[in-house]
Amino acid sequence: MSDVILDRRDLRFQLFEVLDTDTLFERERFAEHSRDTIEAALDTAEKLAREKFADHNSLADKEEPQFVDGKVVMRPEVKAAFDAYIDAGFLSSRASFEEGGMQLPDIAAAACKGMFTCVNPSSTAYAFLTAAAANVIRNFASDELKARYLEPMMQGRFTGTMALTEPHAGSSLADIRTRAVPQDDGSYRLKGNKIFISGGENELADNIVHLVLAKIPGGPEGVKGISLFVVPKYRLDEQGNPGPRNDVILAGLIHKLGYRGTTSTALTFGDNDDCHGYLVGEAHQGLRYMFQMMNEARVGVGFGAALLGYRGYRYALDYARDRLQGRHPDAADFSKPMVPIIEHADVRRLLLTQKAYAEAALAMSFYGYRLVDEIESGEAQSSRDAELLLDLLTPVLKTWPSEYGLKANDMAIQVFGGAGYTREYPVEQVWRDNRLNPIHEGTTGVHGLDLLGRKVWQANGKGMQLLAGKIMADVEATSDVRCKPFATALQAMLPKIQAATEASGKLMADKGPRVALSNGNAYLQLVGHTVAAWMWLRQANAAVKLDRPEDEDFANGKLMAATYFFRWELPRVELDAQRLVDADSTFMDMDSRWF
Amino acid sequence: MSDVILDRRDLRFQLFEVLDTDTLFERERFAEHSRDTIEAALDTAEKLAREKFADHNSLADKEEPQFVDGKVVMRPEVKAAFDAYIDAGFLSSRASFEEGGMQLPDIAAAACKGMFTCVNPSSTAYAFLTAAAANVIRNFASDELKARYLEPMMQGRFTGTMALTEPHAGSSLADIRTRAVPQDDGSYRLKGNKIFISGGENELADNIVHLVLAKIPGGPEGVKGISLFVVPKYRLDEQGNPGPRNDVILAGLIHKLGYRGTTSTALTFGDNDDCHGYLVGEAHQGLRYMFQMMNEARVGVGFGAALLGYRGYRYALDYARDRLQGRHPDAADFSKPMVPIIEHADVRRLLLTQKAYAEAALAMSFYGYRLVDEIESGEAQSSRDAELLLDLLTPVLKTWPSEYGLKANDMAIQVFGGAGYTREYPVEQVWRDNRLNPIHEGTTGVHGLDLLGRKVWQANGKGMQLLAGKIMADVEATSDVRCKPFATALQAMLPKIQAATEASGKLMADKGPRVALSNGNAYLQLVGHTVAAWMWLRQANAAVKLDRPEDEDFANGKLMAATYFFRWELPRVELDAQRLVDADSTFMDMDSRWF
Repeated sequence: MSDVILDRRDLRFQLFEVLDTDTLFERERFAEHSRDTIEAALDTAEKLAREKFADHNSLADKEEPQFVDGKVVMRPEVKAAFDAYIDAGFLSSRASFEEGGMQLPDIAAAACKGMFTCVNPSSTAYAFLTAAAANVIRNFASDELKARYLEPMMQGRFTGTMALTEPHAGSSLADIRTRAVPQDDGSYRLKGNKIFISGGENELADNIVHLVLAKIPGGPEGVKGISLFVVPKYRLDEQGNPGPRNDVILAGLIHKLGYRGTTSTALTFGDNDDCHGYLVGEAHQGLRYMFQMMNEARVGVGFGAALLGYRGYRYALDYARDRLQGRHPDAADFSKPMVPIIEHADVRRLLLTQKAYAEAALAMSFYGYRLVDEIESGEAQSSRDAELLLDLLTPVLKTWPSEYGLKANDMAIQVFGGAGYTREYPVEQVWRDNRLNPIHEGTTGVHGLDLLGRKVWQANGKGMQLLAGKIMADVEATSDVRCKPFATALQAMLPKIQAATEASGKLMADKGPRVALSNGNAYLQLVGHTVAAWMWLRQANAAVKLDRPEDEDFANGKLMAATYFFRWELPRVELDAQRLVDADSTFMDMDSRWF
Repeated sequence: MSDVILDRRDLRFQLFEVLDTDTLFERERFAEHSRDTIEAALDTAEKLAREKFADHNSLADKEEPQFVDGKVVMRPEVKAAFDAYIDAGFLSSRASFEEGGMQLPDIAAAACKGMFTCVNPSSTAYAFLTAAAANVIRNFASDELKARYLEPMMQGRFTGTMALTEPHAGSSLADIRTRAVPQDDGSYRLKGNKIFISGGENELADNIVHLVLAKIPGGPEGVKGISLFVVPKYRLDEQGNPGPRNDVILAGLIHKLGYRGTTSTALTFGDNDDCHGYLVGEAHQGLRYMFQMMNEARVGVGFGAALLGYRGYRYALDYARDRLQGRHPDAADFSKPMVPIIEHADVRRLLLTQKAYAEAALAMSFYGYRLVDEIESGEAQSSRDAELLLDLLTPVLKTWPSEYGLKANDMAIQVFGGAGYTREYPVEQVWRDNRLNPIHEGTTGVHGLDLLGRKVWQANGKGMQLLAGKIMADVEATSDVRCKPFATALQAMLPKIQAATEASGKLMADKGPRVALSNGNAYLQLVGHTVAAWMWLRQANAAVKLDRPEDEDFANGKLMAATYFFRWELPRVELDAQRLVDADSTFMDMDSRWF
């Protein structure tokens, strides 16, 4: 097995040759940074990922957390990894120097985090959830809540969760039933059941800070009546130390297909009417606050899926180089040794497809993180544009890597053949782990509705115009003859998307959203594959500029993956565009009694 | 959860309304049979599947067989199921009445077997392997071997295996190293290692009969030097009872992703130079004999994959009818109850796609079994044609259901959402179980080579002509206006396939097989999807003929699944046809150093 986690050459390519991460160093906030400091941070991340996370990825899957006497018992390596991650400062990778952080751009922080997810998504999740919950508290909670909770979370003494889903309400958050009743002291008493709460119980820290969505009686109906609460596992004493047990009970662990190292919990709040919670920000604004966390999480889910797609691809690549089997069809001399399976065209197809999926998925994730940096540190207009574009692209950044990263993992198993079907080899776990990603933080179907039903029309379609403009800029910047056909093919997609969008708009006006959104998935696939193709044009344009001899193989690989994508993948979504233009009614016409 | 295993209405449709199973009863061998006897056999199979197989499908997955002191320890329910299957006579479902069999047509025997695979593929596998091994002995072994082994196998006292794969040789059987040295008494001494031997150890019977591929020293090179041996776990005494332990050692169990109830073993033959084996048929003809078993097994693998695709679909359908979540986009009144998720267009898309995949896969499997009946009991010309056609179609019958049954299972998980990702619900196991099917009995890639490299050209392309003729007959028999668009679209695929075939033939002549076969997978997908579309035309044509009111929903469902397939699926493989015509060289051009 090779030693590669995330190929450093490719990371450098994505960050500095495809994207303009260098320009961030000209900004005040990142003036202390340079390629060298980023590479140094990556060195640290890679070393730590290798030493403290890679060791127990399989072990924590085979020996998943157990529910014992109302508590959870976990492999000790998970806590060792969590502590090492905190100690090395990665939880604060984006925090300012004066807060003790690394003050990294988001794109660089993401690249560092990628090292950990790539080798052990389950153990990494605890830190990510804690960082995300801390972020919500930092952005929206009162100074008092911040003072009590933020520091211990950033120090890894408390972990964080996001507690949204209830047994009867997952995609439909409007229907949550958890109630929060105000008390004279300004706190609330919560009562309700939550399910699928990742990290909802663990052995990593002194306390757990649940960010809980609940409704305050008398508030508005639906999503407008949802508020957000900090609900600690142990209530804090005056010094801010964990005191009495709060009325949050671990009802049970959920046994998952994959991602087993991360506890998924069913939690009961207020079974003894003594669950104290503290309102974050204003009442009834909870979903808005949570959505900030969720939008970050969605880009993060896509990135995680991309990383697992990449991980499986690298495993398969190593195996294909080593495993000898069969001979070429024109050289069936049995006295000659067998060839490595990478020599077989169909194995190369499986590998090239994985490369095309995984590296496009990584490229679009990094593009998303670069947008975050633009939002946070760019000039005013550029920042507003980036915000619109990221908002539009979030459904794609979440779903495309999730769908295609998983397909890549399926192909990784296929490259391994029978060995891939055994738990003695790592690819089956990668596939199982990745299967979560098209589900959580909004299923693919939900994101299709979000894109076609909301995002496309926001700001009078400005997001779509920005996207088309960005794509056209890359089309027009294409000068190398090897890339021209890619640019031409990509450009040809734009009027197709426009026609599909207009047809959907017309359908919306004529027949309403139920009909107009019934092909939301087709629209998402169409835009998703076009964005992936765009990422390949950008990578191809960057690859042809590499002129050092040692980059030749690398650049050729990028060009071939782009070739694959434009020849074998992009044309398949023309059907989706056509069906949208036709206002195809297949899924509306199918009566549920007919199944 | 609904009680449906294999929907009996659909089975009746497939066997008697799409296919002409009735005409078999006019043949002498099946003269005692009728729809009623078939339905009675199905009743028995369904009852037994429900009572003895469904009970432990999940249990045998969670508590997989263990390797203890050189032996295997299994859940006791597996033996109870195996014994009940034998007692009910299903191992002899095709044997003649005088042999104590049911003398069923293959298509009816398959439908019965389908009940068991659908609910518990792992426990069913032991019986299938035993029947398949017995078949090889019946067809090719000497009378002496038959006398000693056949009866105890058919009575379930001995189980059977097929031992082909070695650690270094899976797809490339030419390279096996197991040796068989002739002895003075006519027996052989075997020495070698086999891996991935399903059922290679079990607690079900008194003995295990391994059918082992090995080479006799001095024989020809490659596949022409492979011979087939009966190698029992216990050698038989003069009365035919298991006597001394043969030198076959269980080296270990392989821990699989799915299909865990079926032991997968690593076996060592002749470690103490005392492994007795008995030649089946003639020396060096082993692969030919084994291929008879393998071709049956390949159709069986496809059928099994179709059944699991169907099983997942039915689970998802039941869940979608029960699970309430969200509201229609045009009716977001939160005071109203939520709707069953089957009301959401995207869930209907997921369900309709599963139906389109699973029921096309079942239809093509039954078509294959009907061909077997034609081969065995049809008129001479018809029998020869059926043999050519089945030979041509075997790669499709094996791979299309395997690939698309698995995709259906992925969608079943998606319908369940978060619940589908837990081991508390059954769909994740179905998905894991089904993942084996694109791998064993020849990977999808290997079947692409087989179809484009061999099958298409056999008998001067007669098989392809027969296929085109059969398809055109159904196109021309299409009279209902609802089905005409399907017929038109299907007919339009034939010249595309022909052009792809001719382009491949030309490439073969100009550049040799290595280049010509490099797009074997595209060819397999093209033909596979066309055959699936053909199955939908046939089902649609049969559905419009149903005129009883109680069949209306059923017929509408079939028409909508056909509509889905022709609108959203078949056009996607036009790209494959185009790339074949272009002689696309992407996978040849990709140098392995560039990855």
